[in-house]
Amino acid sequence: MNRFLRLNNVAYDHTPASFEQWRQAKLPRIQFALDCALPPATTEPPRLHHAMRYAVLGAGKRLRPLLCHATGEIFSVAPDALDYPATAVELIHAASLVHDDLPALDNDDLRRGRATVHVQYDEALAILVGDALFAQAFNVLSQTPAEAECLARLVKELAGASGSMGLTGGEALDLAAVGGTLDVMQLQTLHQMKTGSLIRASVRMAAQCAGSSHPLIPELDHYAHAIGLALQIIDDIHDITLDSATLGKTAGKDARDGKATYVSVHGLPMSRQHATQLIEQAHDALQTLPGNTAPLHGLAAMIHRHLP
Amino acid sequence: MNRFLRLNNVAYDHTPASFEQWRQAKLPRIQFALDCALPPATTEPPRLHHAMRYAVLGAGKRLRPLLCHATGEIFSVAPDALDYPATAVELIHAASLVHDDLPALDNDDLRRGRATVHVQYDEALAILVGDALFAQAFNVLSQTPAEAECLARLVKELAGASGSMGLTGGEALDLAAVGGTLDVMQLQTLHQMKTGSLIRASVRMAAQCAGSSHPLIPELDHYAHAIGLALQIIDDIHDITLDSATLGKTAGKDARDGKATYVSVHGLPMSRQHATQLIEQAHDALQTLPGNTAPLHGLAAMIHRHLP
Repeated sequence: MNRFLRLNNVAYDHTPASFEQWRQAKLPRIQFALDCALPPATTEPPRLHHAMRYAVLGAGKRLRPLLCHATGEIFSVAPDALDYPATAVELIHAASLVHDDLPALDNDDLRRGRATVHVQYDEALAILVGDALFAQAFNVLSQTPAEAECLARLVKELAGASGSMGLTGGEALDLAAVGGTLDVMQLQTLHQMKTGSLIRASVRMAAQCAGSSHPLIPELDHYAHAIGLALQIIDDIHDITLDSATLGKTAGKDARDGKATYVSVHGLPMSRQHATQLIEQAHDALQTLPGNTAPLHGLAAMIHRHLP
Repeated sequence: MNRFLRLNNVAYDHTPASFEQWRQAKLPRIQFALDCALPPATTEPPRLHHAMRYAVLGAGKRLRPLLCHATGEIFSVAPDALDYPATAVELIHAASLVHDDLPALDNDDLRRGRATVHVQYDEALAILVGDALFAQAFNVLSQTPAEAECLARLVKELAGASGSMGLTGGEALDLAAVGGTLDVMQLQTLHQMKTGSLIRASVRMAAQCAGSSHPLIPELDHYAHAIGLALQIIDDIHDITLDSATLGKTAGKDARDGKATYVSVHGLPMSRQHATQLIEQAHDALQTLPGNTAPLHGLAAMIHRHLP
C-alpha cells in the first residue's frame, strides 16, 4: 500500500488500524440508520415487519453502506445525507438475498449464520419481505436531504442498478447458466450485473450527493468495477475452500448447483492472482482523486484480506 | 349521475359514450408508454425481458393509469408528464400480480385469461420478473419531467403505497387471514392496503404533478378510498358469481382458500348495496372540485357497471 500513500498527501494515517477505527465508527451508525428505516415489529402487519427486521438487522458486512460513506469522505459529503443512500442500497441488497435464497432460486437455508427468511418464517412471507424491502429502499432514498435534482439521479441510479439491467438481470443470467457453460466474458458480465451493479451504485450515489454529474465518477467507476469483481472471485474461492460454519452460508453450493464460477473456469491459483490484480487496480484508480481516499483504499485492502 | 352533472359546470358531456371516447383515446397511449418502459425482449437477459413484457403487455383494464390521466384532467396537467407515474403504478401493479400468483401465495395459474408468469415460464423467473418490474417502476418514475421537488414526492408516494404499510402489507394481512376469521374493520383495512393503496397513489401522484401538496388532495383521497373499496367488493362478488372464463382468472378461489371476503362476511345483497353506496360516495367527493372531473366520474361509473 506504499504507492498510494505517497500519492495521496492527505492528513490520514493509511494503516489498517486507522481504517479499522474508521469502520468501527461507521458500523453502529449504519446499523442505527437501518433500524430507523424499518417499521417496529409491533406495527401492523407485525409478522411482515418482524421478518423484514430479521432479514436486515442480523450480521452483515455492510460493505455497500461503508462504500457510500467512504466515497463521501472524498467529497466531504455530510454523513447525515449519506445515511439515506447507504441505507437504501443495503435494503435492496437484503431484499435480493431473501429472494435469491428461495427454494425456486438458490434454495439455501443458511445465510449470515442463521436460517434464511423462508426457513425461519415461510416462503410466502419471504417473497413479501423482499418486495417490502425493495419499496422501503426507495421510500428511504426519497427522503435524502439533498437538492431535488440530486434526488432524481439517486433514484434513477438505484433503480437502474436493481433492475433487469443490473442486479435482477444478473440473477436471471445466473439462473440461465445453471448446468450450462459460460465463457470468461459471460461470467464477467454476469458478475458485473449481479454483484457489481449495487457496488457501483453505492459509490456513484455518494459522489452524486456531492454535486451533479461529478467529473470524478469515471475513476470511481473503475474502482467499483475492480472491487466488485474481486469480491465475486473471492466469494467463489470461499465457496470451495471454506466450510459452511465459517462461511455463514452453505459451502460448496456452486459445484452442487453446476454453476460456472471463476474457480471452475480458471482454477484456484489463477483466480487468486486475478483477485489480487483487481485489488491493485482498485487502489490505482484512486490515485488521481483528491480528498480523503483512505477509507476507499482501506475497503479494497479489507476485501483483499478476505482472500484465503 | 344527474346530480354531479348539475354541479360540475364544465364543457364536457357526462355521458357514458363521451367517457368511453376519452378512455379509448387514453388506452393506446397507456399501452405505448408501458411498451416503451420495458426493454425489448431481445435485450440481455432476453428471457427475463420477454417475461416482463408478457406480464405487463397482455390484456388489462389499466385502471390505475386511467385514474392518473383522469385526475390530471382536473388540473390540466400535461399528459406527457402523467405518462410516467401512470406507467410506474401499472408496473408495480403487474409486479404484485406476478408475485401474488406464485404457488407459495395465491397459487393461481390463470390471469387476464392467460397462463400466469410462473406457469408460462417458471417460478424462479416469476420472482425475478416481479423484482425487475418493481425496480423499473422507480426508474420510470425518476424520469418524470416535473420539478425535482415534485419528483421526490412522487417517489415517496409510490414507495409508500407499494411497501409494508401499503400493497405488500395488505398481502401479508391477506396471508395471515387465510383460514381465520376477520371482522368488518379488519377486512376493510386489508382491502385499503392491498387494493386501495395503489388506487390512492394513482390519484395523488397526478395531483402532485399539478403542484406541491395540492389542497384538493383530501377530496381526491375520499374518491380513491371509495372506488378502491368498491372495486374490491365487486371483485369478491365476481369471484363467486362468474366463471373462470368470464373472469380471466380462477373463479371461486376465495372460498377454496378459506378467505374472508365482503360476501362471506355480509352476504351478497348487502355487498351489492355497499358497493353502490361507495360509488355514490365517490361521485359526491368530486362535487366541490373545479376543472374537468368528468373522466373521474366516468371511471367510477365504469366500475359500477361491472357490478353484476
